Amino acid sequence: MPRRTNPLRPLKITRGYKTAAAGSVLIEAGNTRVLCTASVCTNPPAWLEKADPPRGWVTAEYNMLPGSTPDRQKRGPNSRATEIQRLIGRSLRAAVDLEKMPGIQITCDCDVLCADGGTRTVSITGAYVALADALTQARRDKLITANPLIGPVAAVSVGIVDGRVVLDLDYQLDVNAEVDMNVVMNHRGQYIEVQGTGEKGTFDQDQLDQLLTLARSGIRKLIAAQKKALRQ
Amino acid sequence: MPRRTNPLRPLKITRGYKTAAAGSVLIEAGNTRVLCTASVCTNPPAWLEKADPPRGWVTAEYNMLPGSTPDRQKRGPNSRATEIQRLIGRSLRAAVDLEKMPGIQITCDCDVLCADGGTRTVSITGAYVALADALTQARRDKLITANPLIGPVAAVSVGIVDGRVVLDLDYQLDVNAEVDMNVVMNHRGQYIEVQGTGEKGTFDQDQLDQLLTLARSGIRKLIAAQKKALRQ
Amino acid sequence: MPRRTNPLRPLKITRGYKTAAAGSVLIEAGNTRVLCTASVCTNPPAWLEKADPPRGWVTAEYNMLPGSTPDRQKRGPNSRATEIQRLIGRSLRAAVDLEKMPGIQITCDCDVLCADGGTRTVSITGAYVALADALTQARRDKLITANPLIGPVAAVSVGIVDGRVVLDLDYQLDVNAEVDMNVVMNHRGQYIEVQGTGEKGTFDQDQLDQLLTLARSGIRKLIAAQKKALRQ
Amino acid sequence: MPRRTNPLRPLKITRGYKTAAAGSVLIEAGNTRVLCTASVCTNPPAWLEKADPPRGWVTAEYNMLPGSTPDRQKRGPNSRATEIQRLIGRSLRAAVDLEKMPGIQITCDCDVLCADGGTRTVSITGAYVALADALTQARRDKLITANPLIGPVAAVSVGIVDGRVVLDLDYQLDVNAEVDMNVVMNHRGQYIEVQGTGEKGTFDQDQLDQLLTLARSGIRKLIAAQKKALRQ
Amino acid sequence: MPRRTNPLRPLKITRGYKTAAAGSVLIEAGNTRVLCTASVCTNPPAWLEKADPPRGWVTAEYNMLPGSTPDRQKRGPNSRATEIQRLIGRSLRAAVDLEKMPGIQITCDCDVLCADGGTRTVSITGAYVALADALTQARRDKLITANPLIGPVAAVSVGIVDGRVVLDLDYQLDVNAEVDMNVVMNHRGQYIEVQGTGEKGTFDQDQLDQLLTLARSGIRKLIAAQKKALRQ
Amino acid sequence: MPRRTNPLRPLKITRGYKTAAAGSVLIEAGNTRVLCTASVCTNPPAWLEKADPPRGWVTAEYNMLPGSTPDRQKRGPNSRATEIQRLIGRSLRAAVDLEKMPGIQITCDCDVLCADGGTRTVSITGAYVALADALTQARRDKLITANPLIGPVAAVSVGIVDGRVVLDLDYQLDVNAEVDMNVVMNHRGQYIEVQGTGEKGTFDQDQLDQLLTLARSGIRKLIAAQKKALRQ
Repeated sequence: MPRRTNPLRPLKITRGYKTAAAGSVLIEAGNTRVLCTASVCTNPPAWLEKADPPRGWVTAEYNMLPGSTPDRQKRGPNSRATEIQRLIGRSLRAAVDLEKMPGIQITCDCDVLCADGGTRTVSITGAYVALADALTQARRDKLITANPLIGPVAAVSVGIVDGRVVLDLDYQLDVNAEVDMNVVMNHRGQYIEVQGTGEKGTFDQDQLDQLLTLARSGIRKLIAAQKKALRQ
Repeated sequence: MPRRTNPLRPLKITRGYKTAAAGSVLIEAGNTRVLCTASVCTNPPAWLEKADPPRGWVTAEYNMLPGSTPDRQKRGPNSRATEIQRLIGRSLRAAVDLEKMPGIQITCDCDVLCADGGTRTVSITGAYVALADALTQARRDKLITANPLIGPVAAVSVGIVDGRVVLDLDYQLDVNAEVDMNVVMNHRGQYIEVQGTGEKGTFDQDQLDQLLTLARSGIRKLIAAQKKALRQ
Repeated sequence: MPRRTNPLRPLKITRGYKTAAAGSVLIEAGNTRVLCTASVCTNPPAWLEKADPPRGWVTAEYNMLPGSTPDRQKRGPNSRATEIQRLIGRSLRAAVDLEKMPGIQITCDCDVLCADGGTRTVSITGAYVALADALTQARRDKLITANPLIGPVAAVSVGIVDGRVVLDLDYQLDVNAEVDMNVVMNHRGQYIEVQGTGEKGTFDQDQLDQLLTLARSGIRKLIAAQKKALRQ
Repeated sequence: MPRRTNPLRPLKITRGYKTAAAGSVLIEAGNTRVLCTASVCTNPPAWLEKADPPRGWVTAEYNMLPGSTPDRQKRGPNSRATEIQRLIGRSLRAAVDLEKMPGIQITCDCDVLCADGGTRTVSITGAYVALADALTQARRDKLITANPLIGPVAAVSVGIVDGRVVLDLDYQLDVNAEVDMNVVMNHRGQYIEVQGTGEKGTFDQDQLDQLLTLARSGIRKLIAAQKKALRQ
Repeated sequence: MPRRTNPLRPLKITRGYKTAAAGSVLIEAGNTRVLCTASVCTNPPAWLEKADPPRGWVTAEYNMLPGSTPDRQKRGPNSRATEIQRLIGRSLRAAVDLEKMPGIQITCDCDVLCADGGTRTVSITGAYVALADALTQARRDKLITANPLIGPVAAVSVGIVDGRVVLDLDYQLDVNAEVDMNVVMNHRGQYIEVQGTGEKGTFDQDQLDQLLTLARSGIRKLIAAQKKALRQ
Repeated sequence: MPRRTNPLRPLKITRGYKTAAAGSVLIEAGNTRVLCTASVCTNPPAWLEKADPPRGWVTAEYNMLPGSTPDRQKRGPNSRATEIQRLIGRSLRAAVDLEKMPGIQITCDCDVLCADGGTRTVSITGAYVALADALTQARRDKLITANPLIGPVAAVSVGIVDGRVVLDLDYQLDVNAEVDMNVVMNHRGQYIEVQGTGEKGTFDQDQLDQLLTLARSGIRKLIAAQKKALRQ
């Protein structure tokens, strides 16, 4: 019995998940489960030290643990992960003013513990919270003085399945989707990234508009959940 | 003195460029120059041979030659190329009915000879023509019987530079763009892929609409050029 | 204020941790936290298919997540991980009769979420439970008929710190240890593996005997905890 | 119908081929087509900076594009390419006085667009012209003051096919050759490199003499063509 | 006809084997033959230069030559070699006072020419002698002033075959062993490393005691042989 | 005090050096020392099994042990080794009729124990003897019926040092050579490979003739030594 198309999957954000990283968040959306850790790097790369004007950097790594899918995945880099971690990094950099974190590099690791669709968007939503915690820690440790955070960034997947637009697809919906779209937005409702793919089909302007409207409504709720988690 | 924002850069598509591949196309858009070759593989991978129902596959590789940029690039795979060749592959597969090319794998190599912005979209536009030639050759060689081509697929970049929407950005415009978007469409005006990124900024719904409208007009001209090249 | 030397760190074994693997266990010993998943492989490697007499195989992979240590670790294989996963694999194979699981390969992934000493021994203790669950699943799925389990296998670290023998060392104790020993035993009190290293010192027969006696007492408790977890 | 044995294949050298490198040359010999670019490196490697007396370096990379042969070639380094690019590098270094280009490294990339025999010798002949253009550019950019060029260097293949000596072998002749020889010479008729291989046969002193005489006549014409191209 | 269980295999240590390394030793135990060379590194790695207090380092590499086994081995790193060379390195470091060799790194390469069991323990025994020679050379070359050597370190394998404890196993015994143990000791009879593995079985305390007693007697003879070789 | 230019360095060929390979030869030329082993492969690669007409293959690997040079060499493949092992393989294949060894692959490993110039040519000379022994073994083991050996193949280096032609250069001569040439010949005085390089200079026809004459005289003696070794 299919989910109704509108609601997001049940979302749970657990801050301070037990790791050694400055920020560590376990985010769960339905059965998808991602551990997002944000580590402050004490040895920035050479190119960052030379940056003029001085600034910091935020980067991301995305990885599916071998046991996260029914068929065990081999470890190691692969082209899909490469594409995804570039997206996560760009999205997170849109959440901060890099010049307010000079000389600091934060790496956000998104390790997928259980994969049931939407792992890249769930990673972005969770990694933002981990990043916020790591920046708080960096200020507490006097590594930076200003607050580099501009505001929340969250992401959601939308798609067209059997001709209908659907929000926050799980794996079963995702494999049947004609069109798959990932949308990243900030708290002011502005787009940071839009990636729509019609590998098994194409989509027209009207469908694109519907997808974006649905994504917008979803992201609004995700950002509310991020804010609530960060207040606790 | 900046180019006017509306026109595409001068485009030149040369079919039958001297290589040994079944389809080989030199495509030039302004100073960007990409050699697109489409090779028919005689030993399909194991997973393809077992596909049920029987079908073929189209894949792509993207590479910038070391001398294509003023600062020589090191050879070898990198994460940017990985992301781009996945996009090219998805786009080309939207141009064919894979079930009409059972057991055939075509690899479209996009080697950038000169990089002046828009290399990924120029690659898609050129690779479609090379793919069409390779499929014609495959039919002539009796490797397949039906024509797998659904119709042309082309791509263009659009962006926001100094607050204005711009079509077909060259390198100088690209590095100054607040928003960068790549759009892939077919001849019926349907989207195949939309990738918009606001690394140095964000974009609202109105800007997104303007960008897509501009991309649509550009792609219409690119598809006309592809058709003209294929008629010759 | 140092821990007393005799007790184990608080231990918690959570079966059925939410992943997609057949067996998945979160094991916590003090602040060390390892996610152990056991996946049944549906495509055994060629050498296993040819084994005569027919038998199965159990292998392991060990990995520290980047955020598991205060200084972020780079991803990817390294010689320490290689050495550890070979130890885990050998230990787990001692827990099963491989001829009772013909054609089946089980991979036990031990991903360290938080590293505070003893990660390899905690991995063995947790992976045994995940392996047991995966074998139960394999029998339920009719992949095998007999029960290949011989009995529990657990491991613990012991060491000499400031001249005193200590059980179940955390990171702080471990870096100060003159001698570090990992002991793997079964439920009958037999040794499966003994690895004692005196990189910062040496140890005599009397110290070795004390270390082994302490390890034996610790492993007895660990095996009781494994049994209790598997009964629940 | 075989070519007569004496003449070189039709040769075409196009300088200023549209790339971003300091020197870029498209060289065509029959159906063989190689794009040779020479890039001036702004960050010389550490060992070069420490060289005493101060000097520069010239190195080469050789690569066949995947579509350059009827059966698509996989990308990436291979032992044949390694051997060839070492030969090209040595040959080019014989054309310059490295002490007259202190601190400058020039990399000559030879990318084979279409492979029909003799790709390594055609690469040397073309890369010399690209190197000359890059050195002119380096002097114009005040990176060096003197002219490091000693004089032209060119290369040709000769072989024994069906017992007859043949000049400038195409692929069809090459695969049938009993003996294959590559000769690199300068404008004074001195040898820089002689590499003769008799994998399918052996050769005696008389045949060696004939091969070298034929190579000498071919190289004289190639050097004339290089000079003519550089005058234009 | 099996060897009696007690004696060591015939041992031969040849110092000054013709290589270019500072210390070079050919060690033969039965048919096992290992070339151990110790090279003094003139460019210590960065982390060593910064060590506080100043100290040196000893590391090891272990490699089986392709022709050392009846079935040719592929070249290149593998997990077994990784595990072994870490053991050799730790063992050799126990033989020296690293603070008495500030800034010096010695690499001990153990290349197995003929493998007939016990290659890791034979490597340790031989590499100690090569290390001693390299340190003598380093003092002669005024690279260090004090003598960093603490005393000999040697290693031997013991095992249980057909229920009996056996010393210094050759390949035939090793593949049939239920328990395999490698013991590293110094001249004062103290343990440096104990690694016992029961992949095909387990072992109880009594068997462990017997194994260690047998190992101790073997190592005493090996250390006598090392001393004799170093006096010559 | 320099060696006279004409004589070869003292040569010693030891067959049946203790390894596990079918043929194993230690060859020493002056201080250069190479262990050549020839292993008969029981699992030929797929392309060889399909060869039509049926035939075998001979391949080579060349490697310098880390301790073979005064400055320790890193392990692992490198471009120089790649080039050399291709030369060794080609040379050895000229010594056999591959169709007389159907389905058999022999790998000749040349591991340099001590490098003092001429390692590639010494490798060829020694590997031929190891290959001959391996083929004898293969006939004894009934893997092949005919004798594939055509006749001896040997190699020597010649060069121009301070304007004089020199035979069988050691390292000191080699680094000072203006021209360096490696010549491979068979017992009938026919060339198999000629590789002359003038990286620090060029050479004219007269010098080439002198070099070849000197090489010829050296190879005649080397082949006599090979024959003598094989008779013993």
